Amino acid sequence: MELKVKLLGIESGKPTVVMDNEYAGLLGLHPSDRIVITYGEKSALAIVNVAETFPRNTLGLYDEVQSMLDIRSGESVQVRPAERPESLGYIRDKIMGHRLRASEMKQIIKDVVERHLSDIELAAFVTALNIWGMSIDEAEALSRAMVSTGKTIQWDKGPILDKHSIGGVPGDKTTLLVVPIVAAAGFIIPKTSSRAITSPAGTADRVEVLCPVSLDMEEIKRVVNETNACLAWGGALDLAPADDLFIQVEYPLSIDPLLFPSIISKKKAIGAEYVVIDIPIGRGAKMKTVAEAQSSARDFIELGKRLRMHVQCAITFGEQPVGLAVGPALEAREALLALKGNGPFDLVNKATELAGILLDMMGVNNGKATAQTLLESGKADSKFREIIAAQGGNPEVAPEDIKLGDKTTQIVSDIDSRVIWINNMAVAQVARAAGAPKEKGAGVLSSVKLGDQVKKGDPLLTIYSVTNSKLEAALTLAERLEPMGLSKRYGEKMLLGRIPTKIPYEKVFVLER
Amino acid sequence: MELKVKLLGIESGKPTVVMDNEYAGLLGLHPSDRIVITYGEKSALAIVNVAETFPRNTLGLYDEVQSMLDIRSGESVQVRPAERPESLGYIRDKIMGHRLRASEMKQIIKDVVERHLSDIELAAFVTALNIWGMSIDEAEALSRAMVSTGKTIQWDKGPILDKHSIGGVPGDKTTLLVVPIVAAAGFIIPKTSSRAITSPAGTADRVEVLCPVSLDMEEIKRVVNETNACLAWGGALDLAPADDLFIQVEYPLSIDPLLFPSIISKKKAIGAEYVVIDIPIGRGAKMKTVAEAQSSARDFIELGKRLRMHVQCAITFGEQPVGLAVGPALEAREALLALKGNGPFDLVNKATELAGILLDMMGVNNGKATAQTLLESGKADSKFREIIAAQGGNPEVAPEDIKLGDKTTQIVSDIDSRVIWINNMAVAQVARAAGAPKEKGAGVLSSVKLGDQVKKGDPLLTIYSVTNSKLEAALTLAERLEPMGLSKRYGEKMLLGRIPTKIPYEKVFVLER
Repeated sequence: MELKVKLLGIESGKPTVVMDNEYAGLLGLHPSDRIVITYGEKSALAIVNVAETFPRNTLGLYDEVQSMLDIRSGESVQVRPAERPESLGYIRDKIMGHRLRASEMKQIIKDVVERHLSDIELAAFVTALNIWGMSIDEAEALSRAMVSTGKTIQWDKGPILDKHSIGGVPGDKTTLLVVPIVAAAGFIIPKTSSRAITSPAGTADRVEVLCPVSLDMEEIKRVVNETNACLAWGGALDLAPADDLFIQVEYPLSIDPLLFPSIISKKKAIGAEYVVIDIPIGRGAKMKTVAEAQSSARDFIELGKRLRMHVQCAITFGEQPVGLAVGPALEAREALLALKGNGPFDLVNKATELAGILLDMMGVNNGKATAQTLLESGKADSKFREIIAAQGGNPEVAPEDIKLGDKTTQIVSDIDSRVIWINNMAVAQVARAAGAPKEKGAGVLSSVKLGDQVKKGDPLLTIYSVTNSKLEAALTLAERLEPMGLSKRYGEKMLLGRIPTKIPYEKVFVLER
Repeated sequence: MELKVKLLGIESGKPTVVMDNEYAGLLGLHPSDRIVITYGEKSALAIVNVAETFPRNTLGLYDEVQSMLDIRSGESVQVRPAERPESLGYIRDKIMGHRLRASEMKQIIKDVVERHLSDIELAAFVTALNIWGMSIDEAEALSRAMVSTGKTIQWDKGPILDKHSIGGVPGDKTTLLVVPIVAAAGFIIPKTSSRAITSPAGTADRVEVLCPVSLDMEEIKRVVNETNACLAWGGALDLAPADDLFIQVEYPLSIDPLLFPSIISKKKAIGAEYVVIDIPIGRGAKMKTVAEAQSSARDFIELGKRLRMHVQCAITFGEQPVGLAVGPALEAREALLALKGNGPFDLVNKATELAGILLDMMGVNNGKATAQTLLESGKADSKFREIIAAQGGNPEVAPEDIKLGDKTTQIVSDIDSRVIWINNMAVAQVARAAGAPKEKGAGVLSSVKLGDQVKKGDPLLTIYSVTNSKLEAALTLAERLEPMGLSKRYGEKMLLGRIPTKIPYEKVFVLER
């Protein structure tokens, strides 16, 4: 069947074409069916959208298909119905509750990465995984497939160490301390991180305040060769690229069934051999209870073993933000302070514990104490500055050089009392309303931690923003969400929630990896 | 936030807008988030697509949003993030396995019909329904919501009868006999039917060979007033419109979790009070076993009762096509022959049994025998011609007037033997390959039924097509799929399938309602 091409000049995110409804019917095509388009030597597989009104004998191409065929409007192409991707049968099997074989998982991931699956099919797969769960064999197959469909790094030296947090706690700049501590101890830790998806700052957002993070593979190798470490953004490296495509459908559904394979595959792709995984627990964190965290830890360890990685997990206290700062610039500044010996006690404790676990795995005697020494001696600070320099930042940067949002407002206590709870989600939402993570200077700086005594008029938190309108929006939200609970004694403020509530439905799902 | 509008000039099927990736980030928007667009007095809720390269400060509008705002390129609109549709929380509850309340189901259906849900969200809901199933309360709520979000017909007279088949058996033109029989008995049966989705012919496709079927509500009322019946296409009447939107995501996934509410809500919307539902069983039909059919029948009856309809079910033999003809024109001709007394015995038997059940429900003494008499006396034929005339067709049409595809080829038996099985799916696929249902004259005409003796050289089936290329494609497919199994005695041909098979993966899912 020959059709004339019309370029639509828009991206759709997938190889998609548009066709007249009536005409598609004549070809026996339904919406979401696939066609093979041939143009000279080139061919492309695309998903069919049908429109009620579209010129007959015409095929509308979104940008993705245009660039596959390298074609202009008005040219003719040949079109025929394509066989259905094999993986659709496997997705259907998963919907029916079957366990999938390794080869089947691999085929699904391959079709995901090659963009052969529509959003509908991806969403159904992710939903089915969320409902049925995954066997360890399936998780292994999925992880391996996610590794093999992307790039991987080979290192000349080793062993390769890595650290990951499953996230969910705002202000967690621990990585900015762990990486230089471990590297200062002489070990190799090529850390790649993500930007924030639903949080006020990802590690890549924090580091970017100090130096470029969009390194390519060659630059990462060079930085690691020079410094034993890096702090790079992993997003453009094509490590386990299937994950980014899954996130596109998991986000609107607020589900996260691929957590384990996603993390393990990214670590494997970067060549990690020894990994510590941080599992924060708390009412506002991704995991709520110790039991949940323990079960997840066992899954991480077993999955790691199957991919020939030594994994240890740390269950950490996640009932409040780590440190005081939330938002890229505020957090970068706090990390600099901590490396200079002026960090909040919880940040320092968490960082030295996690670094200590990695050092223990390397056979270092008393890893935690060693980590503490490396931090206190300034060796970690020097190492951090080496990394900043190697990545193209200013190694002399001082905490006071960091540019913060110049619009600020403070929330103060209206009573003499004590901080008895902190709502992580509320803190994160206020920081986002203030402009984080896109506006690096925006965020929230707490003045108090859980259990602290406060007097009437004492500051509780300061909101930083770049514009007055966002500052106001954040303040309004803070007043509505009540990020901190104050009371003289525990038990004096028993009401945690009220249903129905006056606060409109807000999306507070944590999707960070 | 003010943005300039750029019209994209394409339908996307939903209210969708496109925005630059970076810029969406600044607004705190992710792909699949929703925005409210205000333009003067008008406003629209739309789902956000982000593109890597799209002009900043610009909002790309697909046709759906353009027509909501009635706006031109270059105009300015106000944009703000929208609250998430309430129903997303309920969809998530369903994914988590919760039972949904009536009000929650209603909210979901409302958002479906108002196009507030993305394909991702719809697919997740349908997948979750498929996995968890539905309680009878949920099915009732869903059915009621599907009725109340669409149009309904009120009748001045009554009672209103109706008939439905859950489908899956090719060549099932039973409705073309049941409707005139029941109407000839003096009862009212305003039958609306669908076109084929995955089959070679739907009832609307068959009737359309004889007269127009795209009637509006007023025309249906007129035809029913004149004749006690109609045979109309239901697709444009806006009866339970949610169903059509669900079908868009069920089709690519080959799942059908909404079967019961879908059918029951369409019957309710048309005002039916007494309904017979045909459940064919057979290896190639939608239901495979008597047990499955019995369980479905109980669900249909209970669900009907809850919507104040009297439902009875017929479990019918579905191991072979009904009659000999498959394809719109071939089937219309066969129905005309049957009404003249020259129909295949299985078609006549099925039609009189189903009509008989409806007559029994009306208190007619021996409904089946009455139906038989109405058919044999020619009264049903006269009534059918009244209906054809009222719908604008030629009431004098004779079987030989029906135009069939003029390219034909015959498959003959290569041995003396007997027909021991017929593959419904294969017959349907061959008819579709020949051009059915879009080309009305295309299809397959069998010469034999299950159990028939055949001699070497006897015709088994004839393929009809409009073009030689489709005829050849259908013949090739027939040779590959083997629609009939021939053998001298049962048990002489034990091999039913071989794995792996050389036949490429084909979509043979039956999605007909």
